[in-house]
Amino acid sequence: MVATITQWFHNHHGNLLELDQHVDRSTDQFFIRIEWDLDHFIIPSGQIHDAFAREIGEPLGLNWRIRLPGNRPRMAILVSQMGHCLWDLLTRSQSGELDVDIPLVISNHDTFADTARQFGCDFHQLVVTRDNKADQEAQQLALLAEHAIDFVVLARYMQILSSSFASAYSERIINIHHSFLPAFAGAKPYHRAHERGVKIIGATAHYVTEDLDEGPIIDQDTVRVSHRDPVRDLIRKGRDNEKIVLSRAVRLHLEERIAVHDNRTIIFS
Amino acid sequence: MVATITQWFHNHHGNLLELDQHVDRSTDQFFIRIEWDLDHFIIPSGQIHDAFAREIGEPLGLNWRIRLPGNRPRMAILVSQMGHCLWDLLTRSQSGELDVDIPLVISNHDTFADTARQFGCDFHQLVVTRDNKADQEAQQLALLAEHAIDFVVLARYMQILSSSFASAYSERIINIHHSFLPAFAGAKPYHRAHERGVKIIGATAHYVTEDLDEGPIIDQDTVRVSHRDPVRDLIRKGRDNEKIVLSRAVRLHLEERIAVHDNRTIIFS
Amino acid sequence: MVATITQWFHNHHGNLLELDQHVDRSTDQFFIRIEWDLDHFIIPSGQIHDAFAREIGEPLGLNWRIRLPGNRPRMAILVSQMGHCLWDLLTRSQSGELDVDIPLVISNHDTFADTARQFGCDFHQLVVTRDNKADQEAQQLALLAEHAIDFVVLARYMQILSSSFASAYSERIINIHHSFLPAFAGAKPYHRAHERGVKIIGATAHYVTEDLDEGPIIDQDTVRVSHRDPVRDLIRKGRDNEKIVLSRAVRLHLEERIAVHDNRTIIFS
Amino acid sequence: MVATITQWFHNHHGNLLELDQHVDRSTDQFFIRIEWDLDHFIIPSGQIHDAFAREIGEPLGLNWRIRLPGNRPRMAILVSQMGHCLWDLLTRSQSGELDVDIPLVISNHDTFADTARQFGCDFHQLVVTRDNKADQEAQQLALLAEHAIDFVVLARYMQILSSSFASAYSERIINIHHSFLPAFAGAKPYHRAHERGVKIIGATAHYVTEDLDEGPIIDQDTVRVSHRDPVRDLIRKGRDNEKIVLSRAVRLHLEERIAVHDNRTIIFS
Repeated sequence: MVATITQWFHNHHGNLLELDQHVDRSTDQFFIRIEWDLDHFIIPSGQIHDAFAREIGEPLGLNWRIRLPGNRPRMAILVSQMGHCLWDLLTRSQSGELDVDIPLVISNHDTFADTARQFGCDFHQLVVTRDNKADQEAQQLALLAEHAIDFVVLARYMQILSSSFASAYSERIINIHHSFLPAFAGAKPYHRAHERGVKIIGATAHYVTEDLDEGPIIDQDTVRVSHRDPVRDLIRKGRDNEKIVLSRAVRLHLEERIAVHDNRTIIFS
Repeated sequence: MVATITQWFHNHHGNLLELDQHVDRSTDQFFIRIEWDLDHFIIPSGQIHDAFAREIGEPLGLNWRIRLPGNRPRMAILVSQMGHCLWDLLTRSQSGELDVDIPLVISNHDTFADTARQFGCDFHQLVVTRDNKADQEAQQLALLAEHAIDFVVLARYMQILSSSFASAYSERIINIHHSFLPAFAGAKPYHRAHERGVKIIGATAHYVTEDLDEGPIIDQDTVRVSHRDPVRDLIRKGRDNEKIVLSRAVRLHLEERIAVHDNRTIIFS
Repeated sequence: MVATITQWFHNHHGNLLELDQHVDRSTDQFFIRIEWDLDHFIIPSGQIHDAFAREIGEPLGLNWRIRLPGNRPRMAILVSQMGHCLWDLLTRSQSGELDVDIPLVISNHDTFADTARQFGCDFHQLVVTRDNKADQEAQQLALLAEHAIDFVVLARYMQILSSSFASAYSERIINIHHSFLPAFAGAKPYHRAHERGVKIIGATAHYVTEDLDEGPIIDQDTVRVSHRDPVRDLIRKGRDNEKIVLSRAVRLHLEERIAVHDNRTIIFS
Repeated sequence: MVATITQWFHNHHGNLLELDQHVDRSTDQFFIRIEWDLDHFIIPSGQIHDAFAREIGEPLGLNWRIRLPGNRPRMAILVSQMGHCLWDLLTRSQSGELDVDIPLVISNHDTFADTARQFGCDFHQLVVTRDNKADQEAQQLALLAEHAIDFVVLARYMQILSSSFASAYSERIINIHHSFLPAFAGAKPYHRAHERGVKIIGATAHYVTEDLDEGPIIDQDTVRVSHRDPVRDLIRKGRDNEKIVLSRAVRLHLEERIAVHDNRTIIFS
């Protein structure tokens, strides 16, 4: 498999820049990520997709995708009342640290209306209640479509998305959960972490699936805490952890370094 | 409170070497740990306990204990078939790195009979089945009493202690659980961590209470893993983490640096 | 000492909220930090300073300072062409995460003129050359005075301050150095880290003294790297580390949690 | 290159178990590590080496080595008076955690004579002075030869090996240095770390070259410390770090996961 694929790039003068592969032993599934140099590549950009499909993808029965350089991906951010992840993503985009456009910010509050506009994003407040949830999600989906959004980041968005929303953007919604999943799934993880007396807190970035907090984990990290830290200090220490973990996950997604298999991720980092 | 207590030591020429205090804001409970120099202390060793009780402990209504230099604490180890924590504790004791004697090793297997004897420990195999559990625990307790054991370490001991055993050595049994509690409490945490696709695994040292894996946490630490790590690599990486976390907890216990309150620990480190 | 000081607060109905103390064994120097409740404190705010000086500070010969709630401290940021620390501090101030005002940003470049203004800061470009350095520093000091700046943060400011500048703001200039000091002091630490083949990179926040990169260290942290990381990936991974370490140092400074002794810091965290 | 090599294994029915490759961009050097299944491999074990040389190694001009399953590698330990790394390696070997035999322990002290024998190792004390160094090294080399030693671990061995010794076992001597190199190279790193007031200490495992503490780094790790930690606590915390880092490096070496290039390591982990 590796031989056939790498030979194909070689035959078309595509010098490999990065190659990373993985075999899942339990299912004998094979994964490979290749970055190659287009400079001397003899297949014109517009024909690469078809050529690969015909000569490699179909014969080998691969599940594959190709991303060619070009338009920056477009990301929407959903946020509630905690702004640290929002700020962090906006500044990383504006500084060019993340190669992404953020044309749209949606919130169930108006807290960050000015912030979004300060960074040139379209801002929409859509208050979600038990009764209007379906309508508001329809509006959100319309906004995502209208802004040609490629993927969505829940930057401490405190509403649960419906299954149909999650399915519509499968493997294209990244959530940051403020605990070391599967510990403290659900609400108020820092309060429960304090109650339990843990010595380390965590944050988890994962793709959103229909099952809350059960989606494939992209990245996690932890921070030490002590008996001296009341809940508000867990929240403070956790904030830094959350924004770092979330931005790492967004970068991995942007660089096509994530494969999902069996509700787990392969990270080609 | 601090003023009264520190004044008492001052009045008796007890120079403070370490003072650490903590106030639990939610319950307004006050905790203090003091190490002082006995060199010029004017109360003779044999009378310190009574003097402190009469002049400070009782008037202030403290829950307190004093530990005077002298006999090394005596620790028993219970172990099953994974030896890394056992080895680590035995070598730390033999090298003097941990100031503790380990006169007794008990196991439900005979795997480490030679190892225990190699380090001069009395070794007893007590196979535990559903039927003989009460009898075997009675034997274990008898062995602990016979060897004048001060506290017990479960160094990957794969049997659940009864409530009565746990109560008999309350805050004197330290367990190492091979997960980041409360994640993956119970059996086979590394298998379940792999199944869930976590990016970090952990280990937790805690005092044993009647509720399995629910006792006060003494220390925790974590290690990064990736999709490349099958379960056997989680187990390998976890081993190093477990033995370090467990030995840190044992040291904290030995140096009287742990206070338990409301199923949480205050660690005076 | 502890007894006398805590008694004084007790006598004036000042309930202690936090007390942390440290004795440097090598020099027998004693350090203490106390936070107390002003609610029932019987000395009026305007007289606390004098009362403490007269009754405690002078009799005990202490080197001490008191900070009363009130005006937010005022911080100036000096920056060159890397903006991640600047962005991070500006957003933390704007969101209230750091309790500080940032009225002034000075740079030797104009890269962040718009950013500074976007956050309501006065921005001044002062290009520094070998010839004009003294003049430009005089201007910088004038700007600091004019804006009533309490302390200065060098947020990846790539110019070396003169001794007289460093002395004028002794223990009031915080620098972030992009290495794990004392490794790779001086220029281009990431390039040299890559050249050396290290497996971990670091960042160090320290007070600026007359000796470059030799001032008292406030905080440090590290990040794992591998042979796969070219210099640009060290820079990328390092950025996140730098901004977290720097903001932690700024918070410690703001909350008066740092004491300097013998070119080392005591951190009351 | 990847295509040609993987094709060769494929052609001879050698199923790839692990493949990891790396291109050093600065020198355009290519590195690859392959683990394959011998079960259906059609080249008999005794002919693999020659076949690979003839068909792949020579035509492609590779610098290569093949390790076939078989005899456990034989490791010698040199140690002085700190035993934590020695203990750790001995117990990992005895428990089978490290797949290595340790037939020989050499020391300039007699501290661990009994320990070595307790684990079935031959022990030799060779006191090294300025005058007898050449003679003693000749003896050491003779002992290594006599015991058919494959590689040497300096487990806190406080003598500097001569250039000729280092050359004789090039890339086959692993040292653990008790600092985060290049910080605190040379003597007494913990004392100097304390003096400098660092907030993190480290340990570095590296191959020994003719330049002291300058050899290719295999692994490093760090531990947080604070102003509360006197030198003896740095030493204590460092010990755990050292033994973990050293044993990781030994495992990487044993599993042929290390390539050295330009005084840096590529770690196929």
